[in-house]
Amino acid sequence: MTLLELADAIGVFVFALSGGLAASRQKMDLFGIGVVSLLPAIGGGTLRDLLLNREVFWLNEPETILIALAAAVPAFLLGQRIARFKTLLWFDAAGMALFAVTGAAVAMDAGYGPLIIIMMGTMTASFGGLLRDIVCNEIPLILREDIYATAALIGAAAFWGLTELGLPAPIPFFAGAAVAFGIRAFVLIMR
Amino acid sequence: MTLLELADAIGVFVFALSGGLAASRQKMDLFGIGVVSLLPAIGGGTLRDLLLNREVFWLNEPETILIALAAAVPAFLLGQRIARFKTLLWFDAAGMALFAVTGAAVAMDAGYGPLIIIMMGTMTASFGGLLRDIVCNEIPLILREDIYATAALIGAAAFWGLTELGLPAPIPFFAGAAVAFGIRAFVLIMR
Amino acid sequence: MTLLELADAIGVFVFALSGGLAASRQKMDLFGIGVVSLLPAIGGGTLRDLLLNREVFWLNEPETILIALAAAVPAFLLGQRIARFKTLLWFDAAGMALFAVTGAAVAMDAGYGPLIIIMMGTMTASFGGLLRDIVCNEIPLILREDIYATAALIGAAAFWGLTELGLPAPIPFFAGAAVAFGIRAFVLIMR
Repeated sequence: MTLLELADAIGVFVFALSGGLAASRQKMDLFGIGVVSLLPAIGGGTLRDLLLNREVFWLNEPETILIALAAAVPAFLLGQRIARFKTLLWFDAAGMALFAVTGAAVAMDAGYGPLIIIMMGTMTASFGGLLRDIVCNEIPLILREDIYATAALIGAAAFWGLTELGLPAPIPFFAGAAVAFGIRAFVLIMR
Repeated sequence: MTLLELADAIGVFVFALSGGLAASRQKMDLFGIGVVSLLPAIGGGTLRDLLLNREVFWLNEPETILIALAAAVPAFLLGQRIARFKTLLWFDAAGMALFAVTGAAVAMDAGYGPLIIIMMGTMTASFGGLLRDIVCNEIPLILREDIYATAALIGAAAFWGLTELGLPAPIPFFAGAAVAFGIRAFVLIMR
Repeated sequence: MTLLELADAIGVFVFALSGGLAASRQKMDLFGIGVVSLLPAIGGGTLRDLLLNREVFWLNEPETILIALAAAVPAFLLGQRIARFKTLLWFDAAGMALFAVTGAAVAMDAGYGPLIIIMMGTMTASFGGLLRDIVCNEIPLILREDIYATAALIGAAAFWGLTELGLPAPIPFFAGAAVAFGIRAFVLIMR
């Protein structure tokens, strides 16, 4: 399992938790929670792969789907108890930060320049959460929060910049995700 | 014409009728009815083909588009008279059942395993109706009805299971569609 | 730069202006205005390229993105002053007319027949504006205006018909765009 695959898998799980909790707040049943767990988990990466004309990542990694569905179970069991909106926001922040970097990394591997790399990072990080919010009838976080897509963009840019500096692969990867997560964490703690 | 193409064509027509009736209820003009007939008719199959990286099915079968547009005419002429919501729901149920199986069959032909097969069936069956409902400003059936995506999922699963048992092609095909349609029909009759 | 690329570039810029002005009316910040400038600018062409299984046009022309983002600056600076909705509608009309023809031309180059050519023109012209209106929480123009998609459709059909008549490339191109723009202009002036 490569670093990219690992980050994709963790991103899928935490984003699925954000979806499961959002669905739980809407009092959906287990099936609905499963569907809404999938949306943020695979939405961003699916858009990334369609745009870059790669095979959609979960088609040959069906375990990705199982990871996302597994997140529906704790969301269903604990949803009512931990469904403070803030819990959801922290899982969302983690998923966003990881996908900002995986989106950027896939575009970089495909040979694109900084503009496309940063756009792909930002879109991969944002699109799944947008789908989740639309289906759960919430005003999308990306529209409601001043600093959301910006955090993904800066994380993707940091990943690109540090890679350009010639640092070995894991460093730009972790640093990019840490920057994106840090910015969102700061916003969440400060308010 | 293969069984798959035939089922796709019938699914396109009945789903187009559901779209035409929905547009007619909104008092759209003939052009609008044509557009909204197309959405459920080709939406699900388009998503399926994009995700599976196949050529989008209607590009080289433009008669598919003509079939969908043909459904706009009776919807326009009879819409006001037969626009009881229930009529629309029956056409929707038939389209959903057929597309659950064609979606699953295409994924199976492409060599995917049960999880992807069942997901593709469910998505192909649901996505077009979702587009129709969004554009017609209705709360999407898939969100409003407890048993909707579930019916598609069970139909796709039945198609997969019966094919695995080695039954000749038409049996899993008809049985899968019949199961999906039967579940929806039961819900529609019971209420 | 081919005629197609030039028309795509101008369409991107004027459609981006329509997006920037729409975002400005919503009092978004510069980053939000940039994002909403991108939606109409690249949305329609992205859908066209995904459906036709071509490489998404802006991936290898990142200057397209820069053109769209450049439009965000005047929209930000002048937005409050010129944000009469009518200004936005004129830029939208110009983008719609150009993309109706580029959408049709790409489908024609790929060897498709009139039905697909006209559909692709109409979808390319309409989809980006639809995304812009959804994100800005407006009732989409394409649903609110009787003559919108129809104008794109007629422009794409004129492009196809004049090309079939054997006229040299620039004539169908300009005539198709002029017809689509003229129809919308008539509607905008008359009301």
